[in-house]
Amino acid sequence: MLETTIAAIGPLDTPAMVAARERHTRLTKPAGSLGALEELSVRLAGLAGTCPPPLPTPAAVAVFAGDHGVHAQRVTPWPQEVTAQMIANFLTGGAVVNAFARQAGAAVTVIDVGVATPLPDLPATGTSRLVRAAVRAGTADLATGPAMTRDEARAAIEVGIRIADDLVAGGAGILLTGDMGIGNTTPAAALIAAFTGADAAAATGRGTGVDDPTYAHKVAVVAAALRRHAPDPTDPVGVLAAVGGLEHAALAGFILGAAAHRRPVLLDGVIAGSAALAAAALAPDAVHAMIAGHRSAEPGAALALRHLGLDALIDLGLRLGEGTGALLALPVVTGAVRVLHEVATFDSAGVAQK
Amino acid sequence: MLETTIAAIGPLDTPAMVAARERHTRLTKPAGSLGALEELSVRLAGLAGTCPPPLPTPAAVAVFAGDHGVHAQRVTPWPQEVTAQMIANFLTGGAVVNAFARQAGAAVTVIDVGVATPLPDLPATGTSRLVRAAVRAGTADLATGPAMTRDEARAAIEVGIRIADDLVAGGAGILLTGDMGIGNTTPAAALIAAFTGADAAAATGRGTGVDDPTYAHKVAVVAAALRRHAPDPTDPVGVLAAVGGLEHAALAGFILGAAAHRRPVLLDGVIAGSAALAAAALAPDAVHAMIAGHRSAEPGAALALRHLGLDALIDLGLRLGEGTGALLALPVVTGAVRVLHEVATFDSAGVAQK
Repeated sequence: MLETTIAAIGPLDTPAMVAARERHTRLTKPAGSLGALEELSVRLAGLAGTCPPPLPTPAAVAVFAGDHGVHAQRVTPWPQEVTAQMIANFLTGGAVVNAFARQAGAAVTVIDVGVATPLPDLPATGTSRLVRAAVRAGTADLATGPAMTRDEARAAIEVGIRIADDLVAGGAGILLTGDMGIGNTTPAAALIAAFTGADAAAATGRGTGVDDPTYAHKVAVVAAALRRHAPDPTDPVGVLAAVGGLEHAALAGFILGAAAHRRPVLLDGVIAGSAALAAAALAPDAVHAMIAGHRSAEPGAALALRHLGLDALIDLGLRLGEGTGALLALPVVTGAVRVLHEVATFDSAGVAQK
Repeated sequence: MLETTIAAIGPLDTPAMVAARERHTRLTKPAGSLGALEELSVRLAGLAGTCPPPLPTPAAVAVFAGDHGVHAQRVTPWPQEVTAQMIANFLTGGAVVNAFARQAGAAVTVIDVGVATPLPDLPATGTSRLVRAAVRAGTADLATGPAMTRDEARAAIEVGIRIADDLVAGGAGILLTGDMGIGNTTPAAALIAAFTGADAAAATGRGTGVDDPTYAHKVAVVAAALRRHAPDPTDPVGVLAAVGGLEHAALAGFILGAAAHRRPVLLDGVIAGSAALAAAALAPDAVHAMIAGHRSAEPGAALALRHLGLDALIDLGLRLGEGTGALLALPVVTGAVRVLHEVATFDSAGVAQK
C-alpha cells in the first residue's frame, strides 16, 4: 500500500497553472494584489490539474493520537492519561479543535493509532467519530531503544494512508492534519533534527510550555537519541521507527495519501511539520499537496517548513496542536480558490483597465 | 454627532478582562497555547464588558467609496471612472470583497461618500446594497489646495458614524472596513505621514503596483502636500480636510461609531490604517475597538499599525483593499471568541492537569 501510494504521487500540472495565472490577470483587481493567495490558487490548480481547481470543501480534519515511551524521561509535566482523556473530549466536542471545526464546517475524525491507557467511556456525537487503529499501545522509549519496529512504523503509515483514502472516498475536498499525544513534541524534534540536519537545541521547543530545567533536559534527551540511533534521513521508515511516534508516522501516511489523490493537505503545527518531512523524504512530489496552515511557536516547525520550502498562512504564536492552526487557515485556502471561481473579469464587469 | 460619539467612547472593562484571563486557565488546553487569540479574546471581553463577549456575528462590511482630485497629478495609471465601475461590480457581487463576504457570511454595504463620475446602471442584489451619501463629487486636488473644507470633512466623518449606527442597530456584531477609490493610497500616505511623523517616502507605497517613475512622482506629490499644508496632527479634522479623502474621513467616523457602540471594528489595509489614525487622534480610547485584520503590502499600513500599537492577524502580502483583508481575518476573530464560549474546562471534561 505504501509503494502504490508513493507511485501515484506526481508533479503539478503545468497547463492548469498557466491557465490560473492567466485568469488572475483578467479578474477585477490589480495584478498580484492578492499576494500569497494568488500563487496558492495557482498551485492548487496544478494539483487538481484543472482551472479553476475545485473549492476545497468539505474539509476533514484527522486527529491522530498516540502515546510515547519517552514520557518516562519526564520531558513533559502532563500525565500520559491526558491523551486518552482528550480523545474523550474530542468526541464530546469540548476541545478547541471541535470549536474551530464547527466554525469551519469541518468533520473531525479521531484515530487511535497507539494510545497507551484505556479510553474513557466514549459518547457518540454527531460531528466527531473515533477510528480504532492502534498499532501498539504507545511507543517504546526512544531514549533507551527504537520507538518501534520498522514493521510498526510502516503499519502506522498505512493507517494514515487508509484514513486519507476513506476521507477522500467520502467526498472530502481538503484534508487537515491534527494530532494528540502527551510528549509528542519530543519525537517531533528528533524527526526534524534527523531530516533537516539541525541540532537538537534548534529543533526542540517548549511544547506545552515546559520550564527551563525541563526544557534543558528535553534537549538533552533529543540529542542523546540522535547520537544513539544516528537516524539516516534517506531511510524515512527507519527514522520514524527509531525516533518517531505512531501519530507522526500515521500523519506521514495521511499526507502521502492526500498527495496520491491530488487533494490539498493543510498542515497544522510542529507534529505535522515533522511528519511532512518524512512524507517528502518518501515522495518528494508530495510537497506539492502540502499547505502550511500556520507557523507554530515551536522552533522546529519553522525549520521543517523552511526545509520543505513552504510559507505559513498564519503566524499567531499558536502551539496547541489538535489541528487548530490548520482549521484557522482553512478560510484563507478556500478564499484563494473561490476568487478563481467567482470574481468577475474586467470584460464581464465593464471595468476599465489601467 | 461627532462630539456625542467621541464622548461615548471609553476604556476597556477590567473585571471582564480578568474573568476572561481566568477562564482561559481552566479550558482544556495548555495555558497560552492559543497565542495571540487569547489576548484578543480578553480584549474583546473588555470591550463588551462581559465574559464571554458575544460572538462577533453577524458581520457587516462597509465599503466607503470616493474619488480624489489628486488623480489629476497622475499618481495612478487607473482611470477615475473605475471607482464608479467597481461600485457596480460590488453591487452585482463580482468583486473579491463579494466572494470573501459570501464565504464569511458577511453583508456588504457600499457607501458613495463622494464618487466623481456617474454611477453606471445599478442592479439590485440580495447581498450588497448602496447608500448614496456623497458629500461632494470627489475631493479637490490636495497638491494645489485643501482636499475639502473642514465642514465637508466633518460631514464625511458623520456619514461614517451614521453607517456604523445603522449597522449596529441592524444587529451587526462586528464591523469591517472596506474602501474603493482610484488614487486613494496617495491621501492615505499623506495622512499616515501627518499622524505618525514618518516622512513621505516611508509612508508612500506603490498602491495598485505603479512603476518606478510613477512611484517617485507619487512620493514627491505627498511630500509637497505635507510641506504645503503642514497638517497639525492635534487637529484631526483639519488633517483630513487638507490631505485626506472622503472615504478616509468616513472610515474614521465609522471606526468611532463602532467604538462608541463597544463593537469590534476589523480594519482592512492602508486606507483603514490611515483612517484609524484619525479616529485615534479624535478619541484615543477608540483603539480598544480596533482589530488589525492584516498587514498590507503598503508600507504605510505597517507604520499606522505600529503607531496604534496593533498587531495584524494575517500577513499575506495583500494590497487590494475593498475590505478583503479584513474578511480573511474574520474567522480568526470569531474563533478567538468561540473558544471562550464552547471549550470545555478541565473539570467538566475530566481531563487531568499537569
